[in-house]
Amino acid sequence: MALPPLSSTRCLLPLSLGLFQAVLLLFFALCVTYDEHSASPTNPEDTERVAKQLHSTFPFFQDIQVMLVVGLGMLLAFLPRYGLSALTHNFLLLNVSAQWALVLQGLLHRLQHGTTLLGLRSMISAEFAAVTVLISAGAVLGRTSPCQLLAMALCEVPVYVASEWLIVTKLGVLDVGGTITIHIFACYFGLGVSKALFGNAKPTVHPKETPTPRSDLLALLGALILWVFWPSFVAVLCQPGDTQHRAILHTLLALSAGAVTTVLISILLESNGKLSAAHLQNGSLAGGVAIGVVADLHISPAAALALGSLSSLLCILGFQFLTPLLAKKLALQDHCGIHNLHGLPGVLGAVASIVAALVAPGDGSGAGGHRQAWWQAAGLAVALGGSLLTGMLVGAALRLPCLAPPPEPLCFEDALYFKLKEGVENPPMPGSSTEGAPLAMKECV
Amino acid sequence: MALPPLSSTRCLLPLSLGLFQAVLLLFFALCVTYDEHSASPTNPEDTERVAKQLHSTFPFFQDIQVMLVVGLGMLLAFLPRYGLSALTHNFLLLNVSAQWALVLQGLLHRLQHGTTLLGLRSMISAEFAAVTVLISAGAVLGRTSPCQLLAMALCEVPVYVASEWLIVTKLGVLDVGGTITIHIFACYFGLGVSKALFGNAKPTVHPKETPTPRSDLLALLGALILWVFWPSFVAVLCQPGDTQHRAILHTLLALSAGAVTTVLISILLESNGKLSAAHLQNGSLAGGVAIGVVADLHISPAAALALGSLSSLLCILGFQFLTPLLAKKLALQDHCGIHNLHGLPGVLGAVASIVAALVAPGDGSGAGGHRQAWWQAAGLAVALGGSLLTGMLVGAALRLPCLAPPPEPLCFEDALYFKLKEGVENPPMPGSSTEGAPLAMKECV
Amino acid sequence: MALPPLSSTRCLLPLSLGLFQAVLLLFFALCVTYDEHSASPTNPEDTERVAKQLHSTFPFFQDIQVMLVVGLGMLLAFLPRYGLSALTHNFLLLNVSAQWALVLQGLLHRLQHGTTLLGLRSMISAEFAAVTVLISAGAVLGRTSPCQLLAMALCEVPVYVASEWLIVTKLGVLDVGGTITIHIFACYFGLGVSKALFGNAKPTVHPKETPTPRSDLLALLGALILWVFWPSFVAVLCQPGDTQHRAILHTLLALSAGAVTTVLISILLESNGKLSAAHLQNGSLAGGVAIGVVADLHISPAAALALGSLSSLLCILGFQFLTPLLAKKLALQDHCGIHNLHGLPGVLGAVASIVAALVAPGDGSGAGGHRQAWWQAAGLAVALGGSLLTGMLVGAALRLPCLAPPPEPLCFEDALYFKLKEGVENPPMPGSSTEGAPLAMKECV
Repeated sequence: MALPPLSSTRCLLPLSLGLFQAVLLLFFALCVTYDEHSASPTNPEDTERVAKQLHSTFPFFQDIQVMLVVGLGMLLAFLPRYGLSALTHNFLLLNVSAQWALVLQGLLHRLQHGTTLLGLRSMISAEFAAVTVLISAGAVLGRTSPCQLLAMALCEVPVYVASEWLIVTKLGVLDVGGTITIHIFACYFGLGVSKALFGNAKPTVHPKETPTPRSDLLALLGALILWVFWPSFVAVLCQPGDTQHRAILHTLLALSAGAVTTVLISILLESNGKLSAAHLQNGSLAGGVAIGVVADLHISPAAALALGSLSSLLCILGFQFLTPLLAKKLALQDHCGIHNLHGLPGVLGAVASIVAALVAPGDGSGAGGHRQAWWQAAGLAVALGGSLLTGMLVGAALRLPCLAPPPEPLCFEDALYFKLKEGVENPPMPGSSTEGAPLAMKECV
Repeated sequence: MALPPLSSTRCLLPLSLGLFQAVLLLFFALCVTYDEHSASPTNPEDTERVAKQLHSTFPFFQDIQVMLVVGLGMLLAFLPRYGLSALTHNFLLLNVSAQWALVLQGLLHRLQHGTTLLGLRSMISAEFAAVTVLISAGAVLGRTSPCQLLAMALCEVPVYVASEWLIVTKLGVLDVGGTITIHIFACYFGLGVSKALFGNAKPTVHPKETPTPRSDLLALLGALILWVFWPSFVAVLCQPGDTQHRAILHTLLALSAGAVTTVLISILLESNGKLSAAHLQNGSLAGGVAIGVVADLHISPAAALALGSLSSLLCILGFQFLTPLLAKKLALQDHCGIHNLHGLPGVLGAVASIVAALVAPGDGSGAGGHRQAWWQAAGLAVALGGSLLTGMLVGAALRLPCLAPPPEPLCFEDALYFKLKEGVENPPMPGSSTEGAPLAMKECV
Repeated sequence: MALPPLSSTRCLLPLSLGLFQAVLLLFFALCVTYDEHSASPTNPEDTERVAKQLHSTFPFFQDIQVMLVVGLGMLLAFLPRYGLSALTHNFLLLNVSAQWALVLQGLLHRLQHGTTLLGLRSMISAEFAAVTVLISAGAVLGRTSPCQLLAMALCEVPVYVASEWLIVTKLGVLDVGGTITIHIFACYFGLGVSKALFGNAKPTVHPKETPTPRSDLLALLGALILWVFWPSFVAVLCQPGDTQHRAILHTLLALSAGAVTTVLISILLESNGKLSAAHLQNGSLAGGVAIGVVADLHISPAAALALGSLSSLLCILGFQFLTPLLAKKLALQDHCGIHNLHGLPGVLGAVASIVAALVAPGDGSGAGGHRQAWWQAAGLAVALGGSLLTGMLVGAALRLPCLAPPPEPLCFEDALYFKLKEGVENPPMPGSSTEGAPLAMKECV
């Protein structure tokens, strides 16, 4: 079967990438200067201070880069014939979104303070904005073209910047690990996009959508990389000292309890007492999602353990029962199960932060605690509602034919986007399972 | 062939995991408070001090997490059809053992000082306890069920805590990198378990026990990850300053000399001048095992190089000659060759520490040096003898049928523990080599 | 087909490795002492200073180790049947070259200052010397024996040490990220070796030289690991403080712009609007090569973005047009395309550093800037000319038959150097494509 003409991709994708990079270059040339830490300070004490801040932040930053580029990339490569595309789309989206967020957050700073400064801190904020795009993309992975994903990124980043500004700066929501601002926002934005993009077509299982043991192994390695570096993600923007120490400890405990609970629940739910690789890949990370919003508070180690266990339980129950239900009732497609990994544990974490605000004595009980609890609830509502709404608008826009959605038989197929060696390029007939494909095909992943 | 009923796994494993997590939660809720670094300090100087200590320890901690979760996991995935299980069992054992060690070490601290404190330092000590379980499991990898491994972990951790307390606190043995307390202890514990568990049945090579080039590549990558981060493991608990610097340098030199020697010896020993992947995966790490016990002493760079070379030599000779001999004479099964990687180089390192105590002028020659040499020898004897004995007791207990040992034809087989896609689930007939298996089977890793 | 007798490898390689390790041991025993940071300081302030320097350098050092051992190793494993060899040769070369550089740089220091000191800084310098060998080896990967590669390493390291001393110490060239001293030097040395070694034989595409989607995925992961840690490589030797901060920011911007440009250009150039995995693996790193020489200067963020984009453009154009041209006109073999990744972006970076010296007001315009521009140009000329010349001499020496060059049909074949399981050992007939090979062969990677 011949591949369809990809003229629109061939023109539109390079054109928009080129235009994007050119506009960005112009913006940087006109508006961006170094921040105080990268401009030359005039005295040794300043140099010392800058060096100290750099050395205390840079290792965290590198950990986060490994998570996003390597860990998440490998996790997304769980589809046996879509590894190269998943890794590449993730990498491209990260770069475009982070640069785009640098511009927008720079402009916001310019509006407020008169200049756009550049430093490692602004890089981290921009990475965080990019994370939302990477998470949302998980809902539509494999059934969307790079053009569609890029269009989504260009729309989602400004919404995130506005939402984060509203939630954190205006409402004063406490959310050091981005549970509300990043995970919940990104999840419901992605689900909104998926719903509006795919409409009411009942989701079917594509023959190429099933992982093999080999692709599952790679994805599990990716999940473990994310698991290892998760504390850096939660704690990078914490106040150095005891606050940051507490955030790291709570995240470690939540992740560890989540890992044990995941194995426990997966064996209980699966027939014959076997584990599911998908449960492991997601459930072991759920604790990290939930703990983010309370990690730096005095919630006690036991609470961190309990929250981690509960999140993993919720995540796996979501995979087992909620995802099929949503697919059946709402025709909702969620290819990587982002609702189970980011949505449910995120909401659980947000609820925990409300409870923590109400009961924690040290964090201002009485009037202060009650007020903070209201703000946390308001933040949850804004993130959830706003993202779902804007996500559906963006999803409707992604139906434009010029964005070159992949034809159904070529979904989840590297050959559509990559020049592969001969004998591998032509995918099997649509609908045929990989079992019946010629040998050369099977070898391709 | 139908899989055997796994009712005992289905009931026992989740039950024990659930019970374990519940007891642990209770303990944390009742007994654990933050340590001085995670509780809120009252003045800026304290905050500064806490921040400094955190930033100087956390990167080391993350390196060790990468080693244990990603590096060791990949190294253990050298069996082509057992990658998912090896990675998952390693991950589960790490989490259960570390939490269990947190409790036990917390109780020990409570006995001595009245409170159980929690901080990054206690996390590192708990990780070290967990390492012993991961090493010991290497002796019985593939022929044990998760229930058996969990039971082993629950028994091994208290023995380790007691042994480490006796060797380091009571005997005053110097062992910054855990050569005696971790590597030797874990190795002989694992061998004891293996001997008592498998009895006098002559070890046979299982048809699924042979690595493929692809699984060897993954395992080699895992070994290289361990190689890269090994200096962090050795130096994390060193006194900051020159001592830590020296420990890092010595470890780097020993590992580098070991890598060169490994290639040299492997080519000399193998027929036709070819390398063995197993030699590379283990020999290049042996230097790191041996150097741990003397890394922070003034042993001179040349001694570090020599120790690294000797360890790798010993390790490869062990693989080539000792392992077959032990299998033949003692019917001893050691699936990952932990005796060659942890036992022999560990003993070599311990001997080196005795020599170093005798000859080093700066570390107290004369009476002091002689006394320390005796303590080092006593530590070696305690670690070796105690672990072998308790390991055999634990191994005998693991023969309980309710722990669901895998039936011989399903050893080294992911399909026993993982829900795999159709056509892959059913393993080939027992005894048949993978060469004759249907195509779908071969593809599964 | 029987493998050829490898007697020379069997004798020569272990012999030379053993001799090398023995000589090195002797040198260390006689000449090397700790540097000021690893010898015992006498007062707490010194300890504090040493600890601070160690904690600010060690995370960078570990990042670089991951790049060289894991990232580069995986990138070189893009050939489906040569993964184990590529990874192992890279690892062996790194260790031999770094030890050899420690000796030579130690002797140079001894000549100038009377002693040979050892510390983390000297380890980093030695690693940098080893990087040149790893890059140069990319030009002849798969068609050279370990003996030949070792001989090359032993020759290249002294030339690098001399060249680096001349360029940086004598000419005062500014090159914080090693663009001129490492990348340009290594590239043209490797091309010189390749030209002299393979002579005027027209390069043909070997049937085993084509990557599969699976090996491409592994190589892409390796490239992404390099991409993530590249800022550490560029900034490790920077002055702590604002200079280092700037170097990190510029490298991040250049790499990010390069990633976007790579996708853009690859889609434009490839037929049907598809991506090439080779373009991605190399183009996304080109920005890091070019930025090294100007990363710590006040070049402005926009210039970093522009330089990153331009480098990637140049790199991909090189793959598409220059490599075939050089192969046709000069019969030049460059198996990994090091000229496109290291040569072209390196020269671009060097030119940028000349321009920066001419125009940058803060870095001494007028007479000072002009003079520095001349030095940068002189450095470029020395690195390029010197490496090409010495590389050709070394390449001619590598034609010695005793260095056991692999026979053409066994090039790019792990079975030549590794003991593989039965049924995999015998490679297919020369010239036959892998498509026609028996099943067991195909499975081997």
